[in-house]
Amino acid sequence: MKQLKVLYGITGIALGLLVAFLVFGNTAANDTANSDATNKSNAEKVYVAPGELDDYYMMASGGHSGQLFVYGLPSMRLIRQVPVFSPDPATGYGFEEESKEMLGGYKWGDFHHPAISETEGDYDGRALFATDVGNNRAAYVDLETFETTDIKEIPNVSGPHCAAFVTPNSEYFFAPTRFSVPIGGEYADLDEYSDTYKGVMTALKPDFKNNQIDVAFQVMLPPWSYDLSDAGKNKSDGWGFLSTYNTEEATTTLEINASQNDRDYIVMFNWEEMAKEVEKGNYTEVNGVKMFDPEENSGSIYLVPAPKSPHGVDVTPDGDYFVANGKLSPTTSVFSVEKAKEAIKNEDFQGEAQGLPVLNYDSVIDKEIEVGLGPLHTQFDDKGNAYTGLFIDSQVVKWNLDSGKVIDKTEISYSSGHLAAVGGDTTNPGGEWLVSLNKISKDQYLSVGPSHPESMDLIDISGEKMELVANTPSQPEPHYAQIIDADKIETTEVAEKDTDRENAVWSTDDAHIEREGDELHVYGVALRSRFVFDAESDRPDVVEAKEGDTVYFHITNIDQDEDITHGFGINGYNENFEIQPGYTKTLKVEVDESGTFPIYCTNFCSALHQEMTGYLLVEPK
Amino acid sequence: MKQLKVLYGITGIALGLLVAFLVFGNTAANDTANSDATNKSNAEKVYVAPGELDDYYMMASGGHSGQLFVYGLPSMRLIRQVPVFSPDPATGYGFEEESKEMLGGYKWGDFHHPAISETEGDYDGRALFATDVGNNRAAYVDLETFETTDIKEIPNVSGPHCAAFVTPNSEYFFAPTRFSVPIGGEYADLDEYSDTYKGVMTALKPDFKNNQIDVAFQVMLPPWSYDLSDAGKNKSDGWGFLSTYNTEEATTTLEINASQNDRDYIVMFNWEEMAKEVEKGNYTEVNGVKMFDPEENSGSIYLVPAPKSPHGVDVTPDGDYFVANGKLSPTTSVFSVEKAKEAIKNEDFQGEAQGLPVLNYDSVIDKEIEVGLGPLHTQFDDKGNAYTGLFIDSQVVKWNLDSGKVIDKTEISYSSGHLAAVGGDTTNPGGEWLVSLNKISKDQYLSVGPSHPESMDLIDISGEKMELVANTPSQPEPHYAQIIDADKIETTEVAEKDTDRENAVWSTDDAHIEREGDELHVYGVALRSRFVFDAESDRPDVVEAKEGDTVYFHITNIDQDEDITHGFGINGYNENFEIQPGYTKTLKVEVDESGTFPIYCTNFCSALHQEMTGYLLVEPK
Repeated sequence: MKQLKVLYGITGIALGLLVAFLVFGNTAANDTANSDATNKSNAEKVYVAPGELDDYYMMASGGHSGQLFVYGLPSMRLIRQVPVFSPDPATGYGFEEESKEMLGGYKWGDFHHPAISETEGDYDGRALFATDVGNNRAAYVDLETFETTDIKEIPNVSGPHCAAFVTPNSEYFFAPTRFSVPIGGEYADLDEYSDTYKGVMTALKPDFKNNQIDVAFQVMLPPWSYDLSDAGKNKSDGWGFLSTYNTEEATTTLEINASQNDRDYIVMFNWEEMAKEVEKGNYTEVNGVKMFDPEENSGSIYLVPAPKSPHGVDVTPDGDYFVANGKLSPTTSVFSVEKAKEAIKNEDFQGEAQGLPVLNYDSVIDKEIEVGLGPLHTQFDDKGNAYTGLFIDSQVVKWNLDSGKVIDKTEISYSSGHLAAVGGDTTNPGGEWLVSLNKISKDQYLSVGPSHPESMDLIDISGEKMELVANTPSQPEPHYAQIIDADKIETTEVAEKDTDRENAVWSTDDAHIEREGDELHVYGVALRSRFVFDAESDRPDVVEAKEGDTVYFHITNIDQDEDITHGFGINGYNENFEIQPGYTKTLKVEVDESGTFPIYCTNFCSALHQEMTGYLLVEPK
Repeated sequence: MKQLKVLYGITGIALGLLVAFLVFGNTAANDTANSDATNKSNAEKVYVAPGELDDYYMMASGGHSGQLFVYGLPSMRLIRQVPVFSPDPATGYGFEEESKEMLGGYKWGDFHHPAISETEGDYDGRALFATDVGNNRAAYVDLETFETTDIKEIPNVSGPHCAAFVTPNSEYFFAPTRFSVPIGGEYADLDEYSDTYKGVMTALKPDFKNNQIDVAFQVMLPPWSYDLSDAGKNKSDGWGFLSTYNTEEATTTLEINASQNDRDYIVMFNWEEMAKEVEKGNYTEVNGVKMFDPEENSGSIYLVPAPKSPHGVDVTPDGDYFVANGKLSPTTSVFSVEKAKEAIKNEDFQGEAQGLPVLNYDSVIDKEIEVGLGPLHTQFDDKGNAYTGLFIDSQVVKWNLDSGKVIDKTEISYSSGHLAAVGGDTTNPGGEWLVSLNKISKDQYLSVGPSHPESMDLIDISGEKMELVANTPSQPEPHYAQIIDADKIETTEVAEKDTDRENAVWSTDDAHIEREGDELHVYGVALRSRFVFDAESDRPDVVEAKEGDTVYFHITNIDQDEDITHGFGINGYNENFEIQPGYTKTLKVEVDESGTFPIYCTNFCSALHQEMTGYLLVEPK
């Protein structure tokens, strides 16, 4: 027996299996060899061998890092940290002129809730949108290049947390605020909170041709906190759903004061209607934005009471129901879209709040699911099931949408904040994998001192019972993620040789330096394994400047081979950027000190990478 | 049959094990039970189940990200990106006052070559040292907290790339330069290169008591490029070894001009001797540093010719040999320390270069190993074998130190830049795992557009043949890594309650705000789930300031539980930082604009995290 125990300890083999094998013999063993995913060991399920690719991309919010984290699933390997709202020293995002201008001096962002663009309610893989809760911005990430191509500051708002959710054909993505402030952020005493402070929802319009976004219009909302959101789909297309808390309108110690009401609201709004009204001119211009006031234009926004300080509100794949997760209630509430529409039609209101009609709870509720403590977020599979993460109980609960019955619970480590299933918020969920984005990792990984990583649990949801398969640490801090089939993303790896491109030089022979007064423009190239700044010079990789000059390095990477990245760093100059194959980047430096400054390729590019250097020589005045 | 499948689904079974069990009975099972990793599938070798921990830490250079990447092995999961030379928006490193001052305005660094502190030539897990090639700095990372506790600018140098290597009892770590510049970085024409430009090696002294480093002395070196390095050990203790290229002293197009000589040098220097000489006063003070000139103080530095532009130079675990990897030669050269010492004693010189004696190659060489194209770096195991990575051939080559015979080759994907084996550069290598840090990943992962991740291959070296087990992408850009037994690191997770700590407040009742002219000092606390800035106020989480004030937020996280991190962000204020349990952090903000600015916890800390908010109200002047 002792020997057997050792065996079990090392291989993790189930005794039952051995017994079964001995009873049923070789046939059973054969089946194992030919088995599908559900018969694989957990190790095999997540293993992606060298040379093979993951099946899915997981696009995870990077939270207060400001960046987008791109994972492969099922391996859960971090493929790329894509810079969005914060500078990135490694790639030079925020260092070279183009991205520096786009970032606009911001050194930090709080990336909340990525939203992949949709067609017919399903991810189409063209772009990803995100909002910055820290500094009130929105971003467009082009999924052909995984580059941030546009960032817009959003006027009149404070903390667009309740975002980004995209409408079924990417007409808009919406970004309501978590904080209420006086419109425009002016100073006002907190005693004036209920009258002067406002929530604001922003409708952003994607421009897929130019990879940009624009603020289309805004909607003034009561001074509550808007937390999470989802767009209607199918039968509920045209509608959007927002969760709220602090409908108490507390101005201090929200922990207690915003947890008084037994029910807050789900805000249900008709964005198609609103867009039409704005089109008709029913708006006021506020700081350059068309502001729609639903108090003055009734009929497009309604409140549905929901227990208690709900975090996520999630629309079922068929669009028939919206599910509110009552953070301070042990329940998840399933509301019927049809019933809600009926109640609206019948003006079946139980009252109003801040001038908005409140639908009768009993008329709209379909069922309450007793899931456990701290339900925050729900995702869906392809078999009519829902999955709700519990922060306090540290569990994921599987329940059936039709029956409302709880089918299974699995432990996670620890404190689930959000869930992401394959296509789990679309009209077409996948049903293979679910990831719990956990807030506490504690003892799950080798200790790295006081600052613990976050943690993500991968759960196999293909069977009747959920199975926790693996976990992985993550950097701060994924809030929500979306998981998309890998074949829905089509990338380009190399930029085409565009001879019309401003500042580009495509041959070593054409590299040259132009002086205009005290501005020096270097039209240079990077190639394996040298820089050429001035083809005519004896030292073509040397730039001679004078103290007080402004030097513009316009560098084109003329290596048009996949994965041949060059870096450009100036020693002692606090500047670095990468140039991808076929790209042109510009760096502006004020050379206010004389001296000898080596220039070098910072990204290991070839066997002679170390030799890829030059000098910036700055003569004293 | 169906029942069996369910069974298999629940557990994980190794087919080979079962067969062995049936054939050999209990004895075989016993053997298997005690077997090493080679009987597991690759998937199982790297799988670390939830609740279990990795066996090793891998501390990887983050290259031009400026940061330290901490991985767990064998899972290769990124546990933590520890900020060192660049700001980190997520943790607020470089944002709050303490780390902001330590970073000194640098927005970027180029982290090269981590070195864990050593005792008797083996990692002791106390600290990790690193240098910044981009901006000429060195850092001390405390491995009790995984925090950067000291950064020093290094005067007189340009690009301390050939670093950090630590002496066997951490007396020093050395940081020689990759670039040569006029000492102090002054301007000088490149025609004066051979006379005026210099390489410089810096000896940094760790202070383990105060978690600091100091520049102890510097050594003037010929105007060559110094690439990689290693410290002697056992018989070669007291010596250090540096690889060089551009001994041609070329000043342009190094790709060609620095690749002329068939042999460059390994610089072999007696650091104990040098330290003694400096102690005796044999130095000149240059910009505040004691500069030792080996031309004027002969007897401590020698040159060993080595083929051709060598990248790594690596000392064998017994300290008897140093191995040079001839980047542009198909060979790795094994030199004998004993022979070198004998040649020095006999003044068996073949000439001199830049005033330094050149040992006779034939007198020092032990053997040349024909490894293949582009050898860059060598590591060692516990069985007398060496492993050399080939950049051009994209292979790792295993060869025997005694026989010089090549034993095995394995393909990697692609272009190995550095290798890291468990304890692979110490007196006590482990022999279980080897990681190839590859420069090109190309088709190995789901495409994320033009900017490819780097790639790391995990190789099982416990058997006679190497086995490529798994790979993982990494962010830009690991250059070297060290792998240490997990049980050698002892961390603390919570800072002790220190009532004498400056600016700390340890109870909500003691939170208060002090005004001194136009400076406002907020002595506040963060706890689950609120901020208390002023215990006496009706709104204890609100700070009222006046336009033009300077506000200091001194915030103590009084939650002294593991992994309860609070964040502190001010909406629209471009500021954020984390406060670990028991820590006090200070943020200084100039409030130069009136308005209403929500303050919020940026790191999800509890079920009521969303409620953990406050306001900064700035009254107009």
